[in-house]
Amino acid sequence: MKLLHDKIIREGMALNEHVLKVDSFLNHQIDPELMREMGTVFAEKFGDQEVTKVLTIESSGIAPALMTALALGVPLVFARKRKSLTLQEDLYTESVYSYTKQETFSVSVSAKFLSAQDRVLIIDDFLANGEAAAGLARLVKQAGAQVAGIGIVIEKSFQQGAARLREEGYLVHSLARIASLGKDRIIFAE
Amino acid sequence: MKLLHDKIIREGMALNEHVLKVDSFLNHQIDPELMREMGTVFAEKFGDQEVTKVLTIESSGIAPALMTALALGVPLVFARKRKSLTLQEDLYTESVYSYTKQETFSVSVSAKFLSAQDRVLIIDDFLANGEAAAGLARLVKQAGAQVAGIGIVIEKSFQQGAARLREEGYLVHSLARIASLGKDRIIFAE
Repeated sequence: MKLLHDKIIREGMALNEHVLKVDSFLNHQIDPELMREMGTVFAEKFGDQEVTKVLTIESSGIAPALMTALALGVPLVFARKRKSLTLQEDLYTESVYSYTKQETFSVSVSAKFLSAQDRVLIIDDFLANGEAAAGLARLVKQAGAQVAGIGIVIEKSFQQGAARLREEGYLVHSLARIASLGKDRIIFAE
Repeated sequence: MKLLHDKIIREGMALNEHVLKVDSFLNHQIDPELMREMGTVFAEKFGDQEVTKVLTIESSGIAPALMTALALGVPLVFARKRKSLTLQEDLYTESVYSYTKQETFSVSVSAKFLSAQDRVLIIDDFLANGEAAAGLARLVKQAGAQVAGIGIVIEKSFQQGAARLREEGYLVHSLARIASLGKDRIIFAE
């Protein structure tokens, strides 16, 4: 997606081989017009997947996911992230390991908002090792629902998440794919 | 705002005199069309305030704030909420007390994203005692910026937050004002 590539080149900051800061338009400050464009592109890409609901994870996933849900005309659900969570009957809960923070956290969704009839499009801001997206996919399965696809704003293609999710049979579309990072150097995969 | 009133009556759940659950369209599952309408109304209400930035707090404020920022054509910044935070030079940080959770947490915004030239519209999902909104207003002042207004989705008018903020001179607009709550009973102020 050219608009996003341009924005990453102009405002993204590669701190080292692993960390790309995009807090001026995605993770802290948010560019609403860019989010709307992203939502339009995701809605086109997954438009034939009979999506009934968009699922993301707080907080940085909410903006692109909201615009995608708006473009598709379906509700958005955001999973709650917690340090730990006692299991509750009315919640679907999964554990997710964060390589960045080197800790395990819980993601949960109220059972009210995912049903066996749902076809769920998962949207998230970053895909690296794929732990968060895989955790959301397990939440969908817990509900007996189908994963209609996985839409990612920025994929770090040099980590194994995208390959792993595609091997598991998921339809994955990333708006920007980063082949490599280095201090002040960003190389796109396309 | 009639659309919101109708939604609250249809889907809101008053658990007791203090708690109104709106997790089917605002706090967990989100209705994107309703968010867009809210954004339009906020943009109209604060359209003459020369807003340069919208500020909210993660996570439930992000959706209505994003739509407001989109309608106004300005960036959105969401403050990060943390249990505690060591002070850092490049962050504006304030402490906020949550009556609901009976704990103090920190809200912070990167100094990069608020400047003395900004006129900031604060958007949040709920206003009860006004602690969160007042904390965001203090963040704006730390940056030397101006508070252009405070837009609230649901105001609990029976608590003192709105009155307190108006007494402090802030322009406050709430899309729905609740006069009282009781088990399965919701009375609007208008």
